[in-house]
Amino acid sequence: MDIVIIGSGNVAAVLGRKFKAAGHTILQVYSRNASAASKLAYEWDTDSTNYTSLIIKNADVYLIAVADDAIDRVANELRLPGMVVAHTAASVPKEVLKRVTAHYGVFYPLQSLRKEMAVLPDVPIFFDGSDELARKKLAALAHSISDENVIEAGDEARLKLHVAAVVVSNFVNHLYSLAEEYCRKEGIEFKQLLPLIAETASRVKEISPEQSQTGPALRHDSETIQKHLELLKNHPQLKNIYVLLTESIQQAK
Amino acid sequence: MDIVIIGSGNVAAVLGRKFKAAGHTILQVYSRNASAASKLAYEWDTDSTNYTSLIIKNADVYLIAVADDAIDRVANELRLPGMVVAHTAASVPKEVLKRVTAHYGVFYPLQSLRKEMAVLPDVPIFFDGSDELARKKLAALAHSISDENVIEAGDEARLKLHVAAVVVSNFVNHLYSLAEEYCRKEGIEFKQLLPLIAETASRVKEISPEQSQTGPALRHDSETIQKHLELLKNHPQLKNIYVLLTESIQQAK
Repeated sequence: MDIVIIGSGNVAAVLGRKFKAAGHTILQVYSRNASAASKLAYEWDTDSTNYTSLIIKNADVYLIAVADDAIDRVANELRLPGMVVAHTAASVPKEVLKRVTAHYGVFYPLQSLRKEMAVLPDVPIFFDGSDELARKKLAALAHSISDENVIEAGDEARLKLHVAAVVVSNFVNHLYSLAEEYCRKEGIEFKQLLPLIAETASRVKEISPEQSQTGPALRHDSETIQKHLELLKNHPQLKNIYVLLTESIQQAK
Repeated sequence: MDIVIIGSGNVAAVLGRKFKAAGHTILQVYSRNASAASKLAYEWDTDSTNYTSLIIKNADVYLIAVADDAIDRVANELRLPGMVVAHTAASVPKEVLKRVTAHYGVFYPLQSLRKEMAVLPDVPIFFDGSDELARKKLAALAHSISDENVIEAGDEARLKLHVAAVVVSNFVNHLYSLAEEYCRKEGIEFKQLLPLIAETASRVKEISPEQSQTGPALRHDSETIQKHLELLKNHPQLKNIYVLLTESIQQAK
């Protein structure tokens, strides 16, 4: 397919690479950020522009991969009647694009994407379309980059997925971050935790996390918990979270 | 080395396998649980007992891999003067073993271990010893199963490591568990989150988690956060954690 990518951030860059790797053609990259757009265009041997009026009109799919709160502005400037246009945001309704075309939709990659990634990870795609044409093209595009993980999902299902994604990614990463800060302040090496982090994340592929829960909270080992809280007295932010998550683990059983 | 393993749980089983794989001899397995002990003994082609009085007296190292609150009881029943004896607990002082021998210590594997593991993971070892003999033997044993991750760590350092381990493993797993429950109740598939879970855990090897934090909390995207809280109104436990971790992420910046 011939694809125009609107946006030059992490999602634009990684999806664009996936499309190229799958044999599609990136016709053009549009971004307000002319320098970021031309960098991606150079990588993909294509053109870039920072004028919406210069966006090419004959692509198979237009992908709007910009920040959630910029989608509305972009949609206001774009008129692509007859074309298939999708945004990539989990939490934005597809109808925001209905002024742009009759064939609008969503192409949401449920993954944490970074431009700097050396290896492109598996990316489950949740798509939605306003009509058969949009659904068909977006589904085909999704299958071309993500064989096993392509699912049709409406606005509400995507929003629900996003909540779960925030929990297992943003919140988990924040726990890593607090642990790293704690280690630094206490003179122990965060990197010694990396095998444990890898094992914990890997196990969830095999066993339900409910089954594999362990630790002082689950054992109601109040002696160890007290020792830990004592050590956390100079880390009020982490201590607060330690108390709440310990209670939550005990409540879950 | 000739090793006697005291205990028959997850840590006993996985460390025993690592020792066997490294060419050591398991002389005997002791456990109050005779059936679990004889299962491990069968696997390792060795003897087992459930009487402390029958524990063989001439091993190079005795490893007490039992639950934290059982170490004291085991230490009370064991007299192994002249021998090197270590427990595997992060949060228990080594001195609990000083009635057993003059050469006591700790051999703490900083990893989440399960008997059922098909693949033995990397296991950083934090060791400590009451004297040169204990330290030397335990360090040699540790290096034989974990080349790059062997570190001497006293009682306080181990306790600190344990706090960090609880955060990045028990608490992270609890977030996975809450997300799984949420997905089940909302009719979405938890397994679609597995690539995201893998990527989030893998990234921390390359980039400081503080650097790679993303999401609605960090962006102060209160519109998305409100939508998420609305969806969580029938999940009070997760909602509570969502609010606290969102605040904590915003506080960190």
